Amino acid sequence: MEKYLVVNGPNLNLLGKREPGIYGTDSLQSLMERMKRLAEKHRVSVGFFQSNHEGALIDRLHAAEEEGYAGIIFNPGALTHYSYALRDAISSISVPVIEVHISNIHAREEFRHRSVTAAVSRGQIAGLGLYGYELALMAFLGAREGEE
Amino acid sequence: MEKYLVVNGPNLNLLGKREPGIYGTDSLQSLMERMKRLAEKHRVSVGFFQSNHEGALIDRLHAAEEEGYAGIIFNPGALTHYSYALRDAISSISVPVIEVHISNIHAREEFRHRSVTAAVSRGQIAGLGLYGYELALMAFLGAREGEE
Amino acid sequence: MEKYLVVNGPNLNLLGKREPGIYGTDSLQSLMERMKRLAEKHRVSVGFFQSNHEGALIDRLHAAEEEGYAGIIFNPGALTHYSYALRDAISSISVPVIEVHISNIHAREEFRHRSVTAAVSRGQIAGLGLYGYELALMAFLGAREGEE
Amino acid sequence: MEKYLVVNGPNLNLLGKREPGIYGTDSLQSLMERMKRLAEKHRVSVGFFQSNHEGALIDRLHAAEEEGYAGIIFNPGALTHYSYALRDAISSISVPVIEVHISNIHAREEFRHRSVTAAVSRGQIAGLGLYGYELALMAFLGAREGEE
Amino acid sequence: MEKYLVVNGPNLNLLGKREPGIYGTDSLQSLMERMKRLAEKHRVSVGFFQSNHEGALIDRLHAAEEEGYAGIIFNPGALTHYSYALRDAISSISVPVIEVHISNIHAREEFRHRSVTAAVSRGQIAGLGLYGYELALMAFLGAREGEE
Amino acid sequence: MEKYLVVNGPNLNLLGKREPGIYGTDSLQSLMERMKRLAEKHRVSVGFFQSNHEGALIDRLHAAEEEGYAGIIFNPGALTHYSYALRDAISSISVPVIEVHISNIHAREEFRHRSVTAAVSRGQIAGLGLYGYELALMAFLGAREGEE
Amino acid sequence: MEKYLVVNGPNLNLLGKREPGIYGTDSLQSLMERMKRLAEKHRVSVGFFQSNHEGALIDRLHAAEEEGYAGIIFNPGALTHYSYALRDAISSISVPVIEVHISNIHAREEFRHRSVTAAVSRGQIAGLGLYGYELALMAFLGAREGEE
Amino acid sequence: MEKYLVVNGPNLNLLGKREPGIYGTDSLQSLMERMKRLAEKHRVSVGFFQSNHEGALIDRLHAAEEEGYAGIIFNPGALTHYSYALRDAISSISVPVIEVHISNIHAREEFRHRSVTAAVSRGQIAGLGLYGYELALMAFLGAREGEE
Amino acid sequence: MEKYLVVNGPNLNLLGKREPGIYGTDSLQSLMERMKRLAEKHRVSVGFFQSNHEGALIDRLHAAEEEGYAGIIFNPGALTHYSYALRDAISSISVPVIEVHISNIHAREEFRHRSVTAAVSRGQIAGLGLYGYELALMAFLGAREGEE
Amino acid sequence: MEKYLVVNGPNLNLLGKREPGIYGTDSLQSLMERMKRLAEKHRVSVGFFQSNHEGALIDRLHAAEEEGYAGIIFNPGALTHYSYALRDAISSISVPVIEVHISNIHAREEFRHRSVTAAVSRGQIAGLGLYGYELALMAFLGAREGEE
Amino acid sequence: MEKYLVVNGPNLNLLGKREPGIYGTDSLQSLMERMKRLAEKHRVSVGFFQSNHEGALIDRLHAAEEEGYAGIIFNPGALTHYSYALRDAISSISVPVIEVHISNIHAREEFRHRSVTAAVSRGQIAGLGLYGYELALMAFLGAREGEE
Amino acid sequence: MEKYLVVNGPNLNLLGKREPGIYGTDSLQSLMERMKRLAEKHRVSVGFFQSNHEGALIDRLHAAEEEGYAGIIFNPGALTHYSYALRDAISSISVPVIEVHISNIHAREEFRHRSVTAAVSRGQIAGLGLYGYELALMAFLGAREGEE
Repeated sequence: MEKYLVVNGPNLNLLGKREPGIYGTDSLQSLMERMKRLAEKHRVSVGFFQSNHEGALIDRLHAAEEEGYAGIIFNPGALTHYSYALRDAISSISVPVIEVHISNIHAREEFRHRSVTAAVSRGQIAGLGLYGYELALMAFLGAREGEE
Repeated sequence: MEKYLVVNGPNLNLLGKREPGIYGTDSLQSLMERMKRLAEKHRVSVGFFQSNHEGALIDRLHAAEEEGYAGIIFNPGALTHYSYALRDAISSISVPVIEVHISNIHAREEFRHRSVTAAVSRGQIAGLGLYGYELALMAFLGAREGEE
Repeated sequence: MEKYLVVNGPNLNLLGKREPGIYGTDSLQSLMERMKRLAEKHRVSVGFFQSNHEGALIDRLHAAEEEGYAGIIFNPGALTHYSYALRDAISSISVPVIEVHISNIHAREEFRHRSVTAAVSRGQIAGLGLYGYELALMAFLGAREGEE
Repeated sequence: MEKYLVVNGPNLNLLGKREPGIYGTDSLQSLMERMKRLAEKHRVSVGFFQSNHEGALIDRLHAAEEEGYAGIIFNPGALTHYSYALRDAISSISVPVIEVHISNIHAREEFRHRSVTAAVSRGQIAGLGLYGYELALMAFLGAREGEE
Repeated sequence: MEKYLVVNGPNLNLLGKREPGIYGTDSLQSLMERMKRLAEKHRVSVGFFQSNHEGALIDRLHAAEEEGYAGIIFNPGALTHYSYALRDAISSISVPVIEVHISNIHAREEFRHRSVTAAVSRGQIAGLGLYGYELALMAFLGAREGEE
Repeated sequence: MEKYLVVNGPNLNLLGKREPGIYGTDSLQSLMERMKRLAEKHRVSVGFFQSNHEGALIDRLHAAEEEGYAGIIFNPGALTHYSYALRDAISSISVPVIEVHISNIHAREEFRHRSVTAAVSRGQIAGLGLYGYELALMAFLGAREGEE
Repeated sequence: MEKYLVVNGPNLNLLGKREPGIYGTDSLQSLMERMKRLAEKHRVSVGFFQSNHEGALIDRLHAAEEEGYAGIIFNPGALTHYSYALRDAISSISVPVIEVHISNIHAREEFRHRSVTAAVSRGQIAGLGLYGYELALMAFLGAREGEE
Repeated sequence: MEKYLVVNGPNLNLLGKREPGIYGTDSLQSLMERMKRLAEKHRVSVGFFQSNHEGALIDRLHAAEEEGYAGIIFNPGALTHYSYALRDAISSISVPVIEVHISNIHAREEFRHRSVTAAVSRGQIAGLGLYGYELALMAFLGAREGEE
Repeated sequence: MEKYLVVNGPNLNLLGKREPGIYGTDSLQSLMERMKRLAEKHRVSVGFFQSNHEGALIDRLHAAEEEGYAGIIFNPGALTHYSYALRDAISSISVPVIEVHISNIHAREEFRHRSVTAAVSRGQIAGLGLYGYELALMAFLGAREGEE
Repeated sequence: MEKYLVVNGPNLNLLGKREPGIYGTDSLQSLMERMKRLAEKHRVSVGFFQSNHEGALIDRLHAAEEEGYAGIIFNPGALTHYSYALRDAISSISVPVIEVHISNIHAREEFRHRSVTAAVSRGQIAGLGLYGYELALMAFLGAREGEE
Repeated sequence: MEKYLVVNGPNLNLLGKREPGIYGTDSLQSLMERMKRLAEKHRVSVGFFQSNHEGALIDRLHAAEEEGYAGIIFNPGALTHYSYALRDAISSISVPVIEVHISNIHAREEFRHRSVTAAVSRGQIAGLGLYGYELALMAFLGAREGEE
Repeated sequence: MEKYLVVNGPNLNLLGKREPGIYGTDSLQSLMERMKRLAEKHRVSVGFFQSNHEGALIDRLHAAEEEGYAGIIFNPGALTHYSYALRDAISSISVPVIEVHISNIHAREEFRHRSVTAAVSRGQIAGLGLYGYELALMAFLGAREGEE
């Protein structure tokens, strides 16, 4: 069974508890459930990882290739804006990555407009809430079915 | 029946004929067909508009509100990067807009990294090919169903 | 009878209907009426033009000279901030132009602080609401009477 | 009787004597007379203040509120371009300020294009000669009459 | 018979009538005649198009390919400096484009030094007056004859 | 007999031998022959100079005036992008200069987009291969014949 | 008993041992003792944490809220200047943070002048040596006593 | 008895009356009383000075040294951001200066993030309200007692 | 008898007392004596003015013209780097100004490299100590004697 | 026996497996073997450390001093370009560091041209493949033998 | 007898012949005569050197030290603005250098405002015509006599 | 016998005599001897060239290819930071170049951090004293032996 990995970066462990005006009231737990339901419907499996540590995220990306994941849905949190090490991690593996942001980073502070990781990802979905993660998975599945 | 509008800006009339390495081989016609099929499946209707004229795009956005569209899926082409007039048009209507780009603009020339329209849109989907339009429609429908 | 032209750029057709917190609740129609009353009081005539098309605005500026207008009161909307083509149109005609902005562009987003058209206009009036158009006409008339 | 204050900053005491190509040949004295005539016509009074001292200008703005002025017509001269202290003075009083510049600052040296004070003023009139002061007064009076 | 297209952008319809110090006293009409004579001498035909509308220029470039033009001599006027939509139009067709400017844009205002369209054109000729258009045609013909 | 000077800067002595993908396979020798043939056809003479030394190029420009050259066709190589001393040399002589670049400098590295010498030259021709030198000579001759 | 947390970032474990010219000769140990004495005097408790890991610091900030700390005194070391992830961590918790720097970062290298974390902290104290930590605690206590 | 000087710059005379959302409701008078009480407790005396004039502030700093002050607590208001003359005044006297800002300047407008005076001061305290002045005095006293 | 004016700006009253490593040990008094001796030798008179107030310096420059000074030797201190009001004062009088700096401002902090006043002065002498003032007077006298 | 430490940062664990076009086909293992052979030849020992965690790298640098290493050969990977915390770690220890990059970072993306760590290292070797590590060790040994 | 060297850079050989509006009508020859007369009056000798070659100027500076010159009066022409090699040459010799510019470089094009050589020179004199060279010599002599 | 060329740019002829704190006390002569000894040990020959002339360096690079050098060890001195002509010379020859700097240019003035020549060289060694030249030769030899 084909498997996909959902990776969340710094501060996303607090999802639903903090700043609901920006990030909504759903928790990481509820994101996992939504993603699992969607995965089941398409007969793929989905794994999860969250860390506040840049290094741990890099380690996880490296391992994802070893473990044969077909795609990574990645929300790097604020590391998006400066972590060239994450960027290199993405370009050093062959598993494709779709970058997701819950809020519309293009409408927030200036420093959030720049993504150093998007350039080496397949694409970016921003501002569509938790639904963005589901769309990313659909994008992978759609591509798989030769629809793209 | 709820209706959505797909708006494409300059040069997208050539879709499929030119620079297939970047934009793929599907034509605007085939995009329309894909979108119609998806719309039918969800029992909504979908309209289309393409123009190489900034002013015509602004006129169309204005009219969309009059005509009661529930959402606009908008690929402003290269106008994305400098048309503050389009930006003002988006923020002057109440119909929500999701910005779509076929290619990963974040991985191309520097001037394509900046979007002056994304900040007043609900979100942005980039780099996922024609599938991005379908994802945008799903995002509208998902939001409608209170899933977001 | 001396005649003046009031030209409004993109999105100003929606005046009064949208974003009243910024642009007020008066419509373009009521602006026209105010301007006509003022013109009559000073025994001059006043014409009007609005378009969302940069090219149509350039065409109109060119024609204004042919038609013998004594002055143009011009609110280029968001084109103010990037349309060098409009700038060239203004400097290629001999009819003097006064730039008007309803809102105080100097107190809004960074990109609105720069005007590429003001440098080739006679002057700029910003932030005084619709009254700014009337002041511009008075400025033309005052100059005519050798008061300036 | 409602009263307004005309404040002029550095070097404007030389008005009419120096650089007439840019600032015209009318003196500050003649500006005062023009403003008084206009004020009388509208049954308001008008006060005047000029200083080459940033601090004296701040003191005068502070005092204007104590003395119950209804509006300030302010040409800060070259302080416009760097005096954040003047900016804070404007935003620390509740009397509204309209910024006036005799010459078209947008068409002169680069450093004159930026105004640090306009953002906290109600609006800005530039390039219309001494007539700009009269227009500013009319703008205050027009606003008072509910015309804006 | 091989055919070439001369495309002129905003404000070039006023050629010869306005700002002769910069653009000379010859009209667009006389440019057409010069170009026709030169074309006849080399047994090629030459077409003309001028518009103040960015969108119309894009439409014309697209059509040029359908119509089998062998080369386009393009003076985009002030759109040169910001129209990424024109840039994309040029790179989306296979007809080669040579950019021409009548005045020496490198010696004028700072904003005229940057061309967003030159990078996707074959080359640029600037500052040589109307003669620049003739040189561009000669460049196309020279290249055709394998001289380049 | 009227005479023109072709001046080539650093590294152009290697023309044809190096980086043919960018600069073509013709040598400086063959450029000289082409230019001589063209000059003969128009009954003017043409001189040549190449040096990798900035100072030697300045000396040559100075001498050109003494020797009565009617025009200089100048490819300053990479000095184009930083040699203010060459710029001053051009503006200190009265012989007109046309700047030529074999490759389209506007489409290469960022640092090649800026020319510090073009602003004081009559014009610039770029991206048209060796044919650009011939076009520059024709531009001089055309101007002489009052065609410009 | 109310409790406060002192968090120190990268390299501050070496305090007192390295670069005493900049950071003084007191160790982290002696800072802890000073802080404890001050805390006892005001009948509050104080906890300590130091790490060279950005992720560990984020984890600690998150936990501080769970554990009911009343305030955090935070010296993020060099992470101050680029860690947007730390910034988000600060703004995602409700415990107030006061940023402290031992040296006067405003008087050192350019890159130390910018703080990406100060904007979401309550305030910043810099350049007052270890005493800055004590002042920050006093600031929290003063605020508590309604003195601010 | 050791004495300290509290210097406040432009617009701080309005403290408590204006913009209480930013600067609080306490007046300069109440600040003086708080500082006096604190000074008495530590058996030092404290002087006060406020001016809206850059020059008067420079004069006062110069005089402070003559009069033997042990330290200056200085809030330069908006002059903080551009007055290199104040900066030179601070570095030209030997009395140490601690810069204080009532609001968190790092979290306000961009232009308030830069301090040209902090680099030559001993340190900076920002964002802690009027309590910041008391902390600055404590910092001077703590340093005196060899605690730093 | 022809007369010249030596004007010194902020902090120069402390000359000789402070930062002798940069400004030397001679006082303003000794500068005056040196200048008087030199003036006597050339049978001209010399006046002096120093102020820490920008406004007072502007007033003094204005008055200098009334009083018929033949030239002004002006060290604006740190105002050199930001006072556009002083710049306007210099360009609004017809008395020529030579700018003098005791230290080599081009070799100090970045912000001292830019002079906003030099552009409207006749010239600038920097880095030659107090001798710079004497050289400036000699330059005025040399120019008078037609030596320049 | 004198000992040296080879430290590798993020993504270098994948050496030889990924992007061989840039980083070559040799693994970290083979680098270790080469370094050991070289060390043996010079009768010194060599240790190794690799981590994807910025914090772990800082910890390792700190520990290196405790353990008496004579020099560190450090490839910080992409952290080179933004980790001021690593920079501070290098400058807080007395063990000398030589920075090594396998690829020529000066010829890659713009963001790789800047090193924030090189300024506090002894030197930098870039673009010479794995051989760069050996050269760094030779540089330490050469310096030891007084050859430098 | 003490000797001084006057060094002139690119294009200054044309002095008096070209652009007299900027550089005056005196030739290099007449400068030499003026300098010789002044030198004789003060019983020192003066040498001269001019070259359009950066390398020749560096060679001459190096040699000046060997030959025992007491000071160099140096006008580097446009090399002032970019030649870091000249800068290094100045700082690699111990003979002091005073930089001279005939025109007021601070009032000309933007690129002439920056001097890369002034920072390592003793000082700079600009805008005082040929008299600036004489003032520079007087500055050396004045310094010698302990007057500075 | 394989041969290598050591090329030194401006001011390096003074090596050992000037600024020994930065460049050490060894002369160019002693560098040559060290390099010769190392070359003999590896049975290759080594040539030397030094010039203060940019043009002469370009000529030498061009000639190196004709003469069959296997590699060039190049210290361009301060030309490193601005000579695009040297950059083009390096990329126009096929002999590989390794850039060497005696001092750690990354730790000196800002303008020395950027190298315009490194991007077209094989690599860069900086900050390791004269030993850097030896390492560069070893890098060439190591590469030759297939060790890289």
